[in-house]
Amino acid sequence: MDRFAVALDLGGTQVRAALVDRRGQILNRVAVPTAATEGPDVVIQQLSDAARAMMSGIEAGRILGVGLCAPGPLNTQEGIAISMPTIAGFENIHLRERLGQSLNLPVWLENDGTAAALGEWRFGAGAGLQNFVYITVSTGIGGGVVADNRLLRGRLGLAGEVGHMTIVRNGDTCSCGNKGCWEAYASGTAFTLRARQRVASLGHGLLAEGGKPVDGKAVFAAAAQGDPFAIELVAEEAEFLGIGIVNLLHLFSPESIVVGGGMSSNLDVLHPGISSKVRDTAMKGFESVPIVRAALEGNSGLIGAAALVYDAVPAISPSSHPA
Amino acid sequence: MDRFAVALDLGGTQVRAALVDRRGQILNRVAVPTAATEGPDVVIQQLSDAARAMMSGIEAGRILGVGLCAPGPLNTQEGIAISMPTIAGFENIHLRERLGQSLNLPVWLENDGTAAALGEWRFGAGAGLQNFVYITVSTGIGGGVVADNRLLRGRLGLAGEVGHMTIVRNGDTCSCGNKGCWEAYASGTAFTLRARQRVASLGHGLLAEGGKPVDGKAVFAAAAQGDPFAIELVAEEAEFLGIGIVNLLHLFSPESIVVGGGMSSNLDVLHPGISSKVRDTAMKGFESVPIVRAALEGNSGLIGAAALVYDAVPAISPSSHPA
Repeated sequence: MDRFAVALDLGGTQVRAALVDRRGQILNRVAVPTAATEGPDVVIQQLSDAARAMMSGIEAGRILGVGLCAPGPLNTQEGIAISMPTIAGFENIHLRERLGQSLNLPVWLENDGTAAALGEWRFGAGAGLQNFVYITVSTGIGGGVVADNRLLRGRLGLAGEVGHMTIVRNGDTCSCGNKGCWEAYASGTAFTLRARQRVASLGHGLLAEGGKPVDGKAVFAAAAQGDPFAIELVAEEAEFLGIGIVNLLHLFSPESIVVGGGMSSNLDVLHPGISSKVRDTAMKGFESVPIVRAALEGNSGLIGAAALVYDAVPAISPSSHPA
Repeated sequence: MDRFAVALDLGGTQVRAALVDRRGQILNRVAVPTAATEGPDVVIQQLSDAARAMMSGIEAGRILGVGLCAPGPLNTQEGIAISMPTIAGFENIHLRERLGQSLNLPVWLENDGTAAALGEWRFGAGAGLQNFVYITVSTGIGGGVVADNRLLRGRLGLAGEVGHMTIVRNGDTCSCGNKGCWEAYASGTAFTLRARQRVASLGHGLLAEGGKPVDGKAVFAAAAQGDPFAIELVAEEAEFLGIGIVNLLHLFSPESIVVGGGMSSNLDVLHPGISSKVRDTAMKGFESVPIVRAALEGNSGLIGAAALVYDAVPAISPSSHPA
């Protein structure tokens, strides 16, 4: 008898749920816009409803449990959301307990970056590795670390906030309130902001045509057409990504850097610039570590959330539990 | 019958050796100036001689093995020194094998920062913790990480090069060749350099008196006497230390930051400035992690090197090996 995990991914934009089997296959899924301003009661109800939608029509005994990933900082040991910059009201909310009571199922909670690293480790670009760093570059920068064949969790499960390394002292203000974080320079948000500022100050070139606000996609498109301003913006983005990646190489000594998030869809274009920065600035022994794209597209976190459940509930031997 | 470990600490200035018991006590020790420009043959001979001096007069069977720590990057899995910026000629040298053959004993090799973290973990300021980051701030900045109750090693054992995070994009040149590393701003070397530059450009105040080249000790002494330039230099050093420490908090989520190296002798003076930077810039959940001084003074690395041996060779039960 097959058994399943329900995976939940609470994001600032969407609440997503999936029914996932032990091989990491998504069998069913649903997504709704996050009620990000309506407070924890409403959002927890959304999570609960999405989970129930996945369990509908499946015998209760065949659901092993619920894996939930959410933006940090999360105290994953206690199952508490300490704060969520993108979702209102999640200050010290007992997310695991409340969702578990609502669903009457065991719930495992993990930081979304760490969950995505777990997903890529079990079923994606990190499969078979003992050491890698997963980074997701989109609105912000998050990540998760596999070190010495284990997920790095740290005190309260808070480790892996890779977006919040200072790379520019007294630099641009970050969403976290600090200045000069990697996220404030290399995230998709920062990339778009830089492009808009550049277009505003230069006022010409492909990017200025049409008068629409520029987005990241437009910059990559213009760069592909040879627009020098766009090419410069892409080169800068690659350099900023490279600075943070070199830091991660020196700190964690991974076998691979796995890049997910929206920015990763242009990793092929960014790769030469990132590699060049790494070659020029990484210490001996670190300069040839591969930088690869995540394999699970936008599902690393969901599949990782399911893997939390399967890691906690070992496979049941056929002899003791005949189908 | 007591058994012992021989510990060796290969540094740019000194080769140190100690005889260490299972409780981390140093029973005998020796130090000689490192023949840092004379090549690996001479330096390996120094290591071997120092180890022999520790074993002299002790039955061969009572020496469990040799723990050696040295500056990275080291491939500790293969026992190879990849390069040593401060000691000439150590390019891909099979340090473990060569020393083991010379001494006819098993040798364990570890990065000096990681070994010091191990020493502090077993017998010092990290005792009982599951997660802490050890940093040593002296000529350079090194470190080691205990995460989730294990030493972080990473691919080839290269993890933990904490001094080589970029904190200032396009900043000052570091000993590693990169620009803007934490080491280039917060190490003892950087602190002294900044003091000398400040004295040269300002040309007055307590620090300029006497006409001697200023060193770090003089700056702390002048600050204690209320000299405003010295106080400013100390505040800057605390800020630079704080920037890197906040990065480490976000990345590793330690329960404690343990500070060793020469700079740590003034940690009490630097502490308010570091704490203030951490309070102002660390994310929620990370801002109250203690920052404490290493407990083993200059011996963290040596005692950690001995702990490598004891970790690898479990205690022998009295019943099977009566004294």
